[in-house]
Amino acid sequence: MSDPAIDLRSDTVTRPTAAMRQTMFEAEVGDDVYGEDPTVNRLQERVARLLGKEKGLFFPTGTMCNQVAIATHTRPGQEVICDRDCHVFNYERGGASHLSGVQLHTLSGQHGILSAEQVRSAIRPVDLHEPMTALILLENTHNRGGGVVYPQPLILDIAEVAHQYRLPMHLDGARLLNASVASGLSPAELAAPFDSVYFCLSKGLGCPAGSVLAGGADFIAQATRLRKAFGGGMRQVGLLAAAGLYALDHHIERLAEDHRRARQLAEQLAQLPAFSVDLEVVHTNIVMVDVQADYTAAAVAADLAAHGVRVSVFGPQRLRLVTHLDINDGAIEQALAVFKRLYG
Amino acid sequence: MSDPAIDLRSDTVTRPTAAMRQTMFEAEVGDDVYGEDPTVNRLQERVARLLGKEKGLFFPTGTMCNQVAIATHTRPGQEVICDRDCHVFNYERGGASHLSGVQLHTLSGQHGILSAEQVRSAIRPVDLHEPMTALILLENTHNRGGGVVYPQPLILDIAEVAHQYRLPMHLDGARLLNASVASGLSPAELAAPFDSVYFCLSKGLGCPAGSVLAGGADFIAQATRLRKAFGGGMRQVGLLAAAGLYALDHHIERLAEDHRRARQLAEQLAQLPAFSVDLEVVHTNIVMVDVQADYTAAAVAADLAAHGVRVSVFGPQRLRLVTHLDINDGAIEQALAVFKRLYG
Amino acid sequence: MSDPAIDLRSDTVTRPTAAMRQTMFEAEVGDDVYGEDPTVNRLQERVARLLGKEKGLFFPTGTMCNQVAIATHTRPGQEVICDRDCHVFNYERGGASHLSGVQLHTLSGQHGILSAEQVRSAIRPVDLHEPMTALILLENTHNRGGGVVYPQPLILDIAEVAHQYRLPMHLDGARLLNASVASGLSPAELAAPFDSVYFCLSKGLGCPAGSVLAGGADFIAQATRLRKAFGGGMRQVGLLAAAGLYALDHHIERLAEDHRRARQLAEQLAQLPAFSVDLEVVHTNIVMVDVQADYTAAAVAADLAAHGVRVSVFGPQRLRLVTHLDINDGAIEQALAVFKRLYG
Amino acid sequence: MSDPAIDLRSDTVTRPTAAMRQTMFEAEVGDDVYGEDPTVNRLQERVARLLGKEKGLFFPTGTMCNQVAIATHTRPGQEVICDRDCHVFNYERGGASHLSGVQLHTLSGQHGILSAEQVRSAIRPVDLHEPMTALILLENTHNRGGGVVYPQPLILDIAEVAHQYRLPMHLDGARLLNASVASGLSPAELAAPFDSVYFCLSKGLGCPAGSVLAGGADFIAQATRLRKAFGGGMRQVGLLAAAGLYALDHHIERLAEDHRRARQLAEQLAQLPAFSVDLEVVHTNIVMVDVQADYTAAAVAADLAAHGVRVSVFGPQRLRLVTHLDINDGAIEQALAVFKRLYG
Repeated sequence: MSDPAIDLRSDTVTRPTAAMRQTMFEAEVGDDVYGEDPTVNRLQERVARLLGKEKGLFFPTGTMCNQVAIATHTRPGQEVICDRDCHVFNYERGGASHLSGVQLHTLSGQHGILSAEQVRSAIRPVDLHEPMTALILLENTHNRGGGVVYPQPLILDIAEVAHQYRLPMHLDGARLLNASVASGLSPAELAAPFDSVYFCLSKGLGCPAGSVLAGGADFIAQATRLRKAFGGGMRQVGLLAAAGLYALDHHIERLAEDHRRARQLAEQLAQLPAFSVDLEVVHTNIVMVDVQADYTAAAVAADLAAHGVRVSVFGPQRLRLVTHLDINDGAIEQALAVFKRLYG
Repeated sequence: MSDPAIDLRSDTVTRPTAAMRQTMFEAEVGDDVYGEDPTVNRLQERVARLLGKEKGLFFPTGTMCNQVAIATHTRPGQEVICDRDCHVFNYERGGASHLSGVQLHTLSGQHGILSAEQVRSAIRPVDLHEPMTALILLENTHNRGGGVVYPQPLILDIAEVAHQYRLPMHLDGARLLNASVASGLSPAELAAPFDSVYFCLSKGLGCPAGSVLAGGADFIAQATRLRKAFGGGMRQVGLLAAAGLYALDHHIERLAEDHRRARQLAEQLAQLPAFSVDLEVVHTNIVMVDVQADYTAAAVAADLAAHGVRVSVFGPQRLRLVTHLDINDGAIEQALAVFKRLYG
Repeated sequence: MSDPAIDLRSDTVTRPTAAMRQTMFEAEVGDDVYGEDPTVNRLQERVARLLGKEKGLFFPTGTMCNQVAIATHTRPGQEVICDRDCHVFNYERGGASHLSGVQLHTLSGQHGILSAEQVRSAIRPVDLHEPMTALILLENTHNRGGGVVYPQPLILDIAEVAHQYRLPMHLDGARLLNASVASGLSPAELAAPFDSVYFCLSKGLGCPAGSVLAGGADFIAQATRLRKAFGGGMRQVGLLAAAGLYALDHHIERLAEDHRRARQLAEQLAQLPAFSVDLEVVHTNIVMVDVQADYTAAAVAADLAAHGVRVSVFGPQRLRLVTHLDINDGAIEQALAVFKRLYG
Repeated sequence: MSDPAIDLRSDTVTRPTAAMRQTMFEAEVGDDVYGEDPTVNRLQERVARLLGKEKGLFFPTGTMCNQVAIATHTRPGQEVICDRDCHVFNYERGGASHLSGVQLHTLSGQHGILSAEQVRSAIRPVDLHEPMTALILLENTHNRGGGVVYPQPLILDIAEVAHQYRLPMHLDGARLLNASVASGLSPAELAAPFDSVYFCLSKGLGCPAGSVLAGGADFIAQATRLRKAFGGGMRQVGLLAAAGLYALDHHIERLAEDHRRARQLAEQLAQLPAFSVDLEVVHTNIVMVDVQADYTAAAVAADLAAHGVRVSVFGPQRLRLVTHLDINDGAIEQALAVFKRLYG
């Protein structure tokens, strides 16, 4: 492969393993627009069961899962309550407003975690001038929050508010399986309070591409129509679905290793004077590293890259490091060695 | 007239005076869609001069001025920076997302006032995932902020940031003339840092309806096309424009009286144990009154209404009172008497 | 008044009469955003009764009536069936797609008149790829069709198709009262097959501005919210509503005169060698005049304007002439004299 | 594989060959959102060269190529000129209006082929009421037109009109390589008059999924941003791109076989009394078969399916048959035998 660097930028950079490729090579496929790809169908059914929902639907990306879910739950001019650090607000190019015409009502959570009281007070009164609240959207684990696992009791409190106001809830569960492994709660338990939920195959699970959205049968029927409209209706994607099935068999439990390695990175970087790390929020495979004022995140990232360690710049003074399938213990040690050499 | 109550809900409730009606009665009109209404044309030119812009354009409402300005300055999927208490985010039914497909990036100002640093840090980096920042939108006076006048030096600081990032600025100046009278700065001075600005004829100025948007010639040409698309291209609106011209002649300076009366209301209500008022932000014709925990705003408003004083509920514990053309000194004293009798 | 020309461009150019102005001058008003303008309320109730619907709603323009009706009846990505010559497709700046995200499925009618069979065959099958048909939109009288009155039996046939497919129907009745006067059918009879309908006060009825949309109570409740979003929520518009009430009392029956004068124009122009007129479609106050190949419509219009007669260019070889409240018998004769002098 | 039927419904149903799978199995990949997938990059460069454009961009589907191209070339409320039988109008769930807010101005072509004169007369004049024409969209080969190859001289005529009005042109070239093979013109020659163009890897080329859009560097930069917004930014898609590269090496010339077999089907079906086929439009791999009035297309399709031949229903009396990589001479003969047995 072309890039020998230790790539901690994201868990999206994983390359399919030989065994995963083999399973893709052998996958039985059909035309999924006609609903005839047997491997896609198997994946969708399996994910629906795993998440405790009626139906699942394969998508090319997690962004499209979120956007189609939002479009299905809302009408133009309505409002979606979410944390101001959430992926939908920050990393989907304004898609919710562009594609669904909805306004994001962002709240300032703690590491991406909102309280039921915050949510309740953001629900609009019935009033001619104000937009109508239509959806509550949470993210678990929370990426910009530092990979924190949303405390399930908080989610249940928010769900009670949602229920009281008859508002649907959508979960951006791009890294839901990390949350499950870290919390010991099953994916279905985590997904239960939500009307719709998706997770990514292409992040910690190590697949090349694809995400699966799950929900009730009516919701998925409407989402299937919108997936077509948004240009996500692919053909023989059983090849990608096969990777997904393989990952569900082989790559879930091992997320605990990613979490252990992230913890190791966090604890050691926290000891370097140039950096600070809030260890309390390192729950999963993400480490947010704040750079002291003498440096900038961009300069540090460039420096590290020149020494074979790639990290993401997440703010003027903030770096993000993510562990994943292609990062083993040796890579962690090598990366730490570079950090210490440069900033020790 | 049918309603003898003292109506402090909003300055939108003013009824045209006999003299204003007379001027409307006599107005020369034409078909404004063809650009042939002489009275509309006079008003547009006059407002453009008043605001120091190339062109003005008459609109049925201020909401449409804001929405057309946003649509002109942006493309779908882009982002508009604004305060989270601003009118566009709270009282235009999600129009910016619905009609222009843009995402509002709301910031937590002090009484609606943002600092240049807040604005700067909200401007998105050039990044594939993030929406592109396209517009900075401010509001002066700030309604939910309590009618505060935006300190002009702060606006100039923000304009410098805008200039540096080549971002246009739009001013929701629904009550810009209140800001002018209160600050002693001319409307043109207040409008100078902005690419587009509008004010309402139908609030403190006492007209029955209408607002005027102003900006450069190209901007107004595009806004004229969007006004047609949004359904704002009216015909013989010289009748309404005549009221506007009358108001510009007769109803600007008297705004000082509204401000004085609002101050009087604020100071006296602040002394009642049931209420608190932040006197520091009572700059113009709006008074935000916070209701102590024993009461709710809704109950107080109902109680007052039963005694002939109408106020707006602006939150679970907040009332808004607004002075205007139809509220004279006697009405203020009557209103205060009711307040004292009920809550003294 | 500034323009002594005989203005046959449109019936939108009418100026309010002295009596209409007087009624406006005296109108009782209130804040219509709060639903408190008594004159608006009277107009809305009266129009609802006239059209046989539960509720009416005042709008600044007919374009906004159409656009709000479309937004209420549809969701983004759905399809609206209409004639390719209709106002919504040609003269509303793409609003249906811009504001509601719907696709117009245009059909080639005869002078704007569609058959039930055309409509039926345009209804989409249930299919993953095709947009969902959501609304049937007709126009009566049909402007580009030459002011033709839609034959009511055809409308009833289309309504049967709509009923069968459970599709709502909207009537762009900008000139519905012309259709009523010309056909002898009451406005309520003409409106009965439709879920929503509007007519303009500012065309043949001679008001300065305004239109009224009517439909069921739920439809109007939703339309009220969208009117606010689109920027059509005005304040003391009882002034304009008063003109509307006056026009309903005094300007309906006289539309027959406009029709007689249009007929006169049509018949005489048909005899001039430079022009041809399809007399069969001159049902109301519109005359479409086709210009022989030696001329262009633009050149003829310029020529006429230079001699004090203003007409609209409706295509490279087509002019539109419209009779209205400000065109009396003398004006018709004068206009015909100019035509004959120039092209006789 | 699960379905032994002769599947003539579409060329989308092809399954990747063993050799194509092998090339996918071995593909070098990276994270394409970061632009780091070497196989994707090679494919994009190769397609750009093949089409004579500066840049190429990989997409999950052809629908997304069209939708992103439309969004890039237009602004909401503008108009796109196209044939009423085109894919964008009929099979993309109203996406152009939903996602870009544009109005499709459909024209009635001959088998999907428009003349320059038709296009010219549909370009809107500069007028306040009319939407602004923003784009001309053609389709080659034309699916609903029966797979006809757009005569290149006609395209050049249309391009001249476009040039005169400074309008961009987009080509829906889902089956552009079929057009190239059938016409003997290179893909670059066919694409030359267009500002943007895409073709599908997943149709005649036999890949499991994917399409490539090509255009100028600025266009592709903007399209990359919109691809992200629309949810089309996938990760290690080098796996799919590898299939595309393989197909460009091995599956272009063989399209001539598909065309020969379609011709054979067409000629023999034309001889059956139950059917009629317009042989003049059978240029490539599509055969439109009209069913005589005694039958319905749906009934015939069901009947054929019961005998192991699958075809698409394309209208109440119309079937579509498509030849492709998985249909060999034996399959054609078998299919014809079934047709003759049932309808001979």
